[in-house]
Amino acid sequence: MTEATTHPARRPRGSAPPRAATPLRVAASAYAREGGLTAHSTFHDWYAEAGERAFARVERVPLDELDGWETDPGTGNLRHHTGGFFTVEGLEVRMPAGAVPAWSQPIINQPEVGVLGILVKEFDGVLHCLMQAKVEPGNANGVQISPTVQATRSNYTRVHGGRPVPYLDLFRDPGPRGPLVDVRQSEQGSAFHHKRNRNMVVEADGDVEVHDGFRWLTLGQLHRLLAEDDLINMDARTVLSCLPFAHEELAREFGPPADAFRAALFRSCDPYAEARHPMSAVLSWITEARTRTVVRARRVPLAGLPGWHRTPERISHSTGAFFDVIGVRVEAGGREVARWSQPMIEPHGTGVVAFLTRSIDGVLHVLMNARVEAGYIDVVELAPTVQCTPASYEHLPRSARPRFLDEVEHPDPARVRFHSVLSEEGGRFHHARNRYLIVDTDLDVPPDDPDYRWMTAHQLVELLRHSHYLNIQARSLVACLQSLLMPGEPAPTAERKVRT
Amino acid sequence: MTEATTHPARRPRGSAPPRAATPLRVAASAYAREGGLTAHSTFHDWYAEAGERAFARVERVPLDELDGWETDPGTGNLRHHTGGFFTVEGLEVRMPAGAVPAWSQPIINQPEVGVLGILVKEFDGVLHCLMQAKVEPGNANGVQISPTVQATRSNYTRVHGGRPVPYLDLFRDPGPRGPLVDVRQSEQGSAFHHKRNRNMVVEADGDVEVHDGFRWLTLGQLHRLLAEDDLINMDARTVLSCLPFAHEELAREFGPPADAFRAALFRSCDPYAEARHPMSAVLSWITEARTRTVVRARRVPLAGLPGWHRTPERISHSTGAFFDVIGVRVEAGGREVARWSQPMIEPHGTGVVAFLTRSIDGVLHVLMNARVEAGYIDVVELAPTVQCTPASYEHLPRSARPRFLDEVEHPDPARVRFHSVLSEEGGRFHHARNRYLIVDTDLDVPPDDPDYRWMTAHQLVELLRHSHYLNIQARSLVACLQSLLMPGEPAPTAERKVRT
Repeated sequence: MTEATTHPARRPRGSAPPRAATPLRVAASAYAREGGLTAHSTFHDWYAEAGERAFARVERVPLDELDGWETDPGTGNLRHHTGGFFTVEGLEVRMPAGAVPAWSQPIINQPEVGVLGILVKEFDGVLHCLMQAKVEPGNANGVQISPTVQATRSNYTRVHGGRPVPYLDLFRDPGPRGPLVDVRQSEQGSAFHHKRNRNMVVEADGDVEVHDGFRWLTLGQLHRLLAEDDLINMDARTVLSCLPFAHEELAREFGPPADAFRAALFRSCDPYAEARHPMSAVLSWITEARTRTVVRARRVPLAGLPGWHRTPERISHSTGAFFDVIGVRVEAGGREVARWSQPMIEPHGTGVVAFLTRSIDGVLHVLMNARVEAGYIDVVELAPTVQCTPASYEHLPRSARPRFLDEVEHPDPARVRFHSVLSEEGGRFHHARNRYLIVDTDLDVPPDDPDYRWMTAHQLVELLRHSHYLNIQARSLVACLQSLLMPGEPAPTAERKVRT
Repeated sequence: MTEATTHPARRPRGSAPPRAATPLRVAASAYAREGGLTAHSTFHDWYAEAGERAFARVERVPLDELDGWETDPGTGNLRHHTGGFFTVEGLEVRMPAGAVPAWSQPIINQPEVGVLGILVKEFDGVLHCLMQAKVEPGNANGVQISPTVQATRSNYTRVHGGRPVPYLDLFRDPGPRGPLVDVRQSEQGSAFHHKRNRNMVVEADGDVEVHDGFRWLTLGQLHRLLAEDDLINMDARTVLSCLPFAHEELAREFGPPADAFRAALFRSCDPYAEARHPMSAVLSWITEARTRTVVRARRVPLAGLPGWHRTPERISHSTGAFFDVIGVRVEAGGREVARWSQPMIEPHGTGVVAFLTRSIDGVLHVLMNARVEAGYIDVVELAPTVQCTPASYEHLPRSARPRFLDEVEHPDPARVRFHSVLSEEGGRFHHARNRYLIVDTDLDVPPDDPDYRWMTAHQLVELLRHSHYLNIQARSLVACLQSLLMPGEPAPTAERKVRT
């Protein structure tokens, strides 16, 4: 028998990615951990140099002294004098069945859908991603690795004039074969009201000029860099998570791997592998959660928001928990220097975002949580097993303490498969950092647990083709899970201290 | 070679329906066009008898004389004195890029998600659907064939006491294998603000008592009945449309059919058949349409709505077009008599809802339209090729006349594959009827037409697993398209006049 007949290329065309082997091309790029056009050994030199050239000076200023921003005299909302960008308003939330049945909070209202896009292109048969070393005012460390394009709708539709966003045209007209990825996804529902961005991956047809501050990196390189703290930014992580990487031929092409965890992960990427719950049951569970849960979120004036008070410097909760709204003045630049002021969200304490994983009949499963956040468009999205800022729960009843938090705060170090501290979006959040963990476990949940389901990697990839199933934190962790597919650095062991 | 090796049962578990062969079980039921438990020859006797026992007397009354309803003195909105059921409010719509860039209209606000459920069970190895002969005040002909359950959220969550809805418990707790179908879908975005219902199909495990007014019917019977005017109600059609019927083994099990149209339809159900656009390109087209289109819909007072005026009997548009809001007093019953009053929507003129289909390389494709309606949750849904009330366009500019309307108003009768007049939901709409057509064509559209795409049946089935991709009219036509799969009555020919 020839190889062609043992492995027929018969696969669903209608439901397949645009090019038959996209997940295999993605995997081949993930395999290239030493890089291609950019040798990995030279990455950090380039990154350090980019950090010197693109700087950001961020200075805290009182909320009343933000250039271009004003407090609405009627509502107390913070808004830009042009009516553009975003507003900070109040949100009144009622969730009768929740541990906390009602609360109020400030929220960022930014209804426009922006574009987060990564341009990809094959060099020597290996897909590369055009990534940008970009400064954001909220980044604790200035420059992080960002998608090719982070554009607002105004950039996208060319409503305003202004400097064109490099490479944006390639996302506006991605050619006849269409994008590899093109899906709107939500952002933090605890801080944003209905915010979402269009996540795109587009393959370049012709030559691409590489501007200052941009580099072609393989997925394997990006996967290595995910393991370093505060390096791959949130926008890059969400776009990477939407790249399809599940395929039944993965093990034949790149495996089978020697260690049991990766072998189970490979099987988890095979659509033919047995899942604890078939997809129809997963979808029904989501439908049930979205139907059962009653959340009433109403935008209200920021002034007089119960439990919150405003000083010249910040808007804070009376308990000191959750987050503050602060003001910053920014001077940033690479080739050109830009100055602006803006409000930002400053969370209190480092969060914990974790997947618990478990091999079920040799197939890796991830424990997903049906999570309600006030700002979601559709009530519930799938979140990581654990997602919280432990400090925020100190003043709440014990019953509000997240399940499984103990397991990820005090894991067996030998079973920690992924661990790094990553930043949330530096354009709106000031020094928002979360410890991202993937921890293998033997724990189980009942198959009809209303809030949790074990799911395969393939099922997550399938849901990521559609909007609003996986939340932003889960998407970051899916990118991290992808990063464990190919053989790389040894997994962290007892020697690498888990900072809890 | 044994059959097992030529047709391996290897199929994606993660993305598969809950039981491996659900689409084949669905097809087997569709094949049983003479019925099973209910011989088809006896159906009409039972239906006529049910129509005599379950009656509805509907009388028009002035809007100010609706028992239990009141006009809000501040807003002019119509509301029930309990705050329950629904309200009739005003909606102000701005769609800058539309043919009509701004308008106002009355809209029904009914935020609760109800349940539309069909109970299925195998008898002699053939799936049967438990259908109800149910009276609705807006039905032109009284009784129509309805799902097992049409329940509001209040019924579902048992918030109120009241008479239990028969069979509802089976949908509240569908057992460990989960429902065959469980997805929230939208309803008419031209009349409802964000209305959606949970569409469910649940398979009964044990014995099921058959109450008065219910019958077990095969899908084949329901498909035959779809061809009769005003018989299968809208709620039944939408649930039927969500039943997965696409499978690569369909032709082997039930075909291949003799006529070219059905042969192309069978191939269209095969996920391995070539589609004009791969699924990722279809999803990208939808993302682009939802991102590009700006619709601002704002609920406003019904009183003083520009262009609309209220008389004692109705709220109408000054042109006489679109629809009226009217009041009715209802006396209806089967075993028990119920009396109530309510506002209803009365459309002007019979609408046209049509799929144009075309065989592309032997695979049937349906021409889908990315359509904006003001009441949709997410801007755009996929609609039939044509969906309009021709009379509504008489006073509008020629540029607003729907594309392809001429093709479906004056088709070659030999190419009309499906044609019947079907009613919209009789609980809110008064005598709302549309001519549903499936017409084969040789027309084409450019592959990058912003508003239309040729799609296979398999792709439609795949999208129907998820919420808010196909609108209610498209879902009705998908049920009609399903009904053409199995050999049945000859297709309508020149002898059956197409009433245009």
